[in-house]
Amino acid sequence: MDAGESGHAGVSGLVGESGRAGASTWRFAKGHGTGNDFVVLPDPDGELTLTAQRIAALCDRRFGIGGDGVLRVVRTDRLPAGAPFTGQAEWFMDYANADGSVAEMCGNGVRVFARYLTDHGLVSTGRFAVATRAGLVGVVVDGDEISATMARPVLGGRSTAVLHGVGFTGTSVDVGNPHLVCPVDELSTLDLDTPPDLDGEVFPHGANVEFVAATGEPLHVRMRVYERGSAETLSCGTGACAVAAVALRDAGEQAGRVVVDVPGGRLTITIDTAGCQLTGPAVIVAEGDLLL
Amino acid sequence: MDAGESGHAGVSGLVGESGRAGASTWRFAKGHGTGNDFVVLPDPDGELTLTAQRIAALCDRRFGIGGDGVLRVVRTDRLPAGAPFTGQAEWFMDYANADGSVAEMCGNGVRVFARYLTDHGLVSTGRFAVATRAGLVGVVVDGDEISATMARPVLGGRSTAVLHGVGFTGTSVDVGNPHLVCPVDELSTLDLDTPPDLDGEVFPHGANVEFVAATGEPLHVRMRVYERGSAETLSCGTGACAVAAVALRDAGEQAGRVVVDVPGGRLTITIDTAGCQLTGPAVIVAEGDLLL
Repeated sequence: MDAGESGHAGVSGLVGESGRAGASTWRFAKGHGTGNDFVVLPDPDGELTLTAQRIAALCDRRFGIGGDGVLRVVRTDRLPAGAPFTGQAEWFMDYANADGSVAEMCGNGVRVFARYLTDHGLVSTGRFAVATRAGLVGVVVDGDEISATMARPVLGGRSTAVLHGVGFTGTSVDVGNPHLVCPVDELSTLDLDTPPDLDGEVFPHGANVEFVAATGEPLHVRMRVYERGSAETLSCGTGACAVAAVALRDAGEQAGRVVVDVPGGRLTITIDTAGCQLTGPAVIVAEGDLLL
Repeated sequence: MDAGESGHAGVSGLVGESGRAGASTWRFAKGHGTGNDFVVLPDPDGELTLTAQRIAALCDRRFGIGGDGVLRVVRTDRLPAGAPFTGQAEWFMDYANADGSVAEMCGNGVRVFARYLTDHGLVSTGRFAVATRAGLVGVVVDGDEISATMARPVLGGRSTAVLHGVGFTGTSVDVGNPHLVCPVDELSTLDLDTPPDLDGEVFPHGANVEFVAATGEPLHVRMRVYERGSAETLSCGTGACAVAAVALRDAGEQAGRVVVDVPGGRLTITIDTAGCQLTGPAVIVAEGDLLL
């Protein structure tokens, strides 16, 4: 399930010139998981091609629909050359960030993607695999909650982020993407209007920075996150997994269940030898036709 | 056309418990005028009632559709008690701000409202009146551009706004709502992350603050705006009208045409004895069904 190991990052070429073969109207849905929101583009037969400019226009919150990213819904057997997931997963999540850049995976995105499939009867059970550029992700739909199982986070060394001149020292964590998890006494007073400065030797490609406060209950924490190349967001699925891994280590546990409250809601992370299961609500709030 | 004179602010009671008589699906559209964006709710027969909470949920950019406000589209002859616009305008714009508060008028909102009517064939010509709580607004649809004619702005005295400890002195202007128009040398360096402090004696209910820079061309200016009770926005129709009125005064003119570049595009304001005509693009970018 790790982008680095599974080697399906080669599924590219899905983003090119915007357009559709043989049709003129684009359907869309808008959904979110704990406030991490996405424009869903149903494209079962793989007819749509999306430019980065088009994705950015769709995700623009004032001139477009608005979202943290785009989830294109395409059958794996309609993927170009190779169809690497045939027989393993029926649907491929073509994920792109709001700026149009392609990304391997998105923890909350795959949960919203699964909600779309379920709502539309595009899967026959509540337990299935979704193909992503980071490989197969196991999904379980259980009422309002949807779980996605990714690789176990890998804990690294200590590093320091500097925010408005104040240093925050924490633990680096690899969840396919890089994170720095910093314990703090108080979340509400943090000013996350500007990105934290990181140690370029530890994080040559930057990192998401999670600030974590205790709740007083064991294995239950609160977090805020500054997402690399973006801003503070209401939720970050992989960030919550990183935070859970640190919470388990601090409790002296190798496996277990951690509740992580994010600004947009509550996520539950279960880490064991099988991987890291991210669980929380995911909803579709609107569907329609794009006119832009 | 002025909220204070026309006396239709009594058209209230449209916002109450959310719901619809006899139907379960809500249609919606999303549109914008120079980046000022709105959730449009078609409700020709006046069946929808909207709570402030419901409006705020729709306008939430991550959990809902997202917008600076809501425009409910209802026939004037379906308005409760009195139907004050019968024979003058077929459609009433029930406007509410993103926080759910009801407002009299919105210059860009009425242009997006008119675009919706035109796109759906709900008006038979490109020149019609829209009923608002501020009275009738004359609309002209001309290709991509839509004009809305409001009352002439009324110039007032000088006052000073304080932003991050720096004072900006300008002219107060009444466009139905209060404005302070402040000339500046450079727009790009302004930090509008926090609201400017105003003189409470001059503006007991606050004001929108426009910062205006010259372009080198006569009667062509650039502006940024901090909207009262909100934040910096990409465009403010009444703000552009206020800015145009000050530009004409500074040029020694009583009437004329002013081009105002806002962060979200370009607006043209024509002020004469008939009123203040606000002209610019307005588009609908998506339509569909609400599931939330």
